[in-house]
Amino acid sequence: MSAPAVGIVGAGQLGRMLALAAYPLGLSVRFLDRAADTPGGQVAPILTGEFTDRGLLRRLGRGAQVVTFDWENVPVEPLQALADRIDFAPPLPALAAAQDRLAEKRLFGKLGIPTNRHAAVDNERDLARAFARIGPGVLKTRRLGYDGKGQVRVRSARDLARAYATLGNAPLLYEEFVPFDCEVSIIGARSARGEIAIYPLNGNVHVDGILRVTRAPWGPTALARAAARHLTRLLEHFRYRGVLTVEFFVRDGRLVANEMAPRVHNSGHWTIEGAETSQFENHLRAILDLPLGSTRARGHAAMVNLIGALPDRAAALGTPGLHWHDYGKSARPGRKLGHCTLIDATPAARDRRVRRLLPGLAPGVRLSLPRLR
Amino acid sequence: MSAPAVGIVGAGQLGRMLALAAYPLGLSVRFLDRAADTPGGQVAPILTGEFTDRGLLRRLGRGAQVVTFDWENVPVEPLQALADRIDFAPPLPALAAAQDRLAEKRLFGKLGIPTNRHAAVDNERDLARAFARIGPGVLKTRRLGYDGKGQVRVRSARDLARAYATLGNAPLLYEEFVPFDCEVSIIGARSARGEIAIYPLNGNVHVDGILRVTRAPWGPTALARAAARHLTRLLEHFRYRGVLTVEFFVRDGRLVANEMAPRVHNSGHWTIEGAETSQFENHLRAILDLPLGSTRARGHAAMVNLIGALPDRAAALGTPGLHWHDYGKSARPGRKLGHCTLIDATPAARDRRVRRLLPGLAPGVRLSLPRLR
Repeated sequence: MSAPAVGIVGAGQLGRMLALAAYPLGLSVRFLDRAADTPGGQVAPILTGEFTDRGLLRRLGRGAQVVTFDWENVPVEPLQALADRIDFAPPLPALAAAQDRLAEKRLFGKLGIPTNRHAAVDNERDLARAFARIGPGVLKTRRLGYDGKGQVRVRSARDLARAYATLGNAPLLYEEFVPFDCEVSIIGARSARGEIAIYPLNGNVHVDGILRVTRAPWGPTALARAAARHLTRLLEHFRYRGVLTVEFFVRDGRLVANEMAPRVHNSGHWTIEGAETSQFENHLRAILDLPLGSTRARGHAAMVNLIGALPDRAAALGTPGLHWHDYGKSARPGRKLGHCTLIDATPAARDRRVRRLLPGLAPGVRLSLPRLR
Repeated sequence: MSAPAVGIVGAGQLGRMLALAAYPLGLSVRFLDRAADTPGGQVAPILTGEFTDRGLLRRLGRGAQVVTFDWENVPVEPLQALADRIDFAPPLPALAAAQDRLAEKRLFGKLGIPTNRHAAVDNERDLARAFARIGPGVLKTRRLGYDGKGQVRVRSARDLARAYATLGNAPLLYEEFVPFDCEVSIIGARSARGEIAIYPLNGNVHVDGILRVTRAPWGPTALARAAARHLTRLLEHFRYRGVLTVEFFVRDGRLVANEMAPRVHNSGHWTIEGAETSQFENHLRAILDLPLGSTRARGHAAMVNLIGALPDRAAALGTPGLHWHDYGKSARPGRKLGHCTLIDATPAARDRRVRRLLPGLAPGVRLSLPRLR
């Protein structure tokens, strides 16, 4: 194979789906992760060790045209030290910004992207002051939060001491609580030559901070356009290469940016069957500076995460038009083990089917997302 | 991974695409082929050695729920000897029939599937007698012919001696030459529980016996229905498990069965993006007795084989909606290196685009296929 190789730091399900998108493009892939029997390691060669191991990172980069990420919380310092000999994409400053909730919020503000009120919290006095100014909110660690981890709600002054005690051993951020109508996300790609391609807006249902259902295309055109404008500003700010995701709350028809992820995103898994080009293929095209593929939707998609335990595969495959994605992981409560995607001709037909299937696929999850006009 | 493993004899591009369809279903795959750096061996573990090596076949079958085929010309005898301990699918009698053009034609006749006149040829006198009865035709080896190999046209009595000398060291078959209007193929799956799912009809363009372009869905409904009836008879005759393909000539609006292939087929590659479930996924579902997926078309597809040398990838990916499939092979004249698929909303729009793109993708190939009414 004379094809250029892609190195991928992290071999989770995102890496696995990147590899499966890489093969038809004639690209070979190599992973780096802590264990071999990972979703990615089951479908492509893998180096095992720590993400901070410079020797391993160098081996990952050897012969690779570009090195990219399955996980955005890789420590940036060891990567920066290798940046003269390895081409990392997305750019490391985007990774660094996404790793620090405060830097991220400040960047949103600088770029005119509406976000909620927030304050840095380094001690208990900072927190009391932030609460006095902002009112009820959420105390979060600035780093390493995902899927609702590293967060404590603060409803009244009585919660302050407990909240600080729970998280207080790390740099923190206090944010206004946004009583949102729904959650949406926007995913797009930018290549080195400056080409930008943005997918339709995703309507997301979270339970306990974990994404459970995404429907796309979703929401009024004006909302999707506003989200795309905000995403474009971020893509251009970083002279970004690859796929970037921004999650928003929607409150009274307006977007409030919550966070960004410098990678392919769970809310974009529907693009495998539901868009002309998947987010995984477009990420690869973008980081290799190939022309981006069309992000147009093919029908109306719903993606349901399979969490904790897989439902019966044979029963699920008996559902007409259901697409099954098993990540090859062992079952564990709260763990994302797979997802499935349904495509229909109309949003109403899709929603009817998803409502019928949800009890079997994601027990207890309801399609709470309202229809925005 | 607790998933059942599938063994695949042969690691060509068909095996590669089977493996890429297996992973999302949570299935692991293992290949057997003569060399490791094969299209399949690049994406899954591989055992290397001869297809007739019983020890290797046993290793391939160990722990596998089922063993299937990327190539139909695997010698059947060593497989039969292992049939008590390895579950082969498709069934070995279907493989054996497809390996012998005479047995295949006789089966077509027995099942009432129209085919061309033919005669077994074991010596030069047989050939003279067959020519006298049938007229102009094609002399073919009974075994190991594919992509136009092992065939000699006989236009007049003067060609007989040369034709026999070219092929005469093997059991032969003489067939009436069918001056066809076009070539079509039909692909379908049957599972052990008897479920059958059949794809829309494919309209195929061959050059020098090699498939170059397929369009689907293709042809009048009545023709597609007739082809599906013939395919169903074969599926039921063998109590088949897996995907089976039948190729036909169309002459004056009627089908003439040419040959069958007991496997996924080049003329079905469009199903990856152009049908609700790909032929590769449905083959896996069928051999594992999982429910079959919908074979409904999504739009109107054209598949173009990339032969001998790949066109410029970046230029091709710049074509909106073009899907690229590189098999990871080194270039060689006449070799199938990849394919690409285009989907459009209407057959006319698809044909316009294919005509425009053909000079770049498949130099010298023309969309010769007529529109049948």
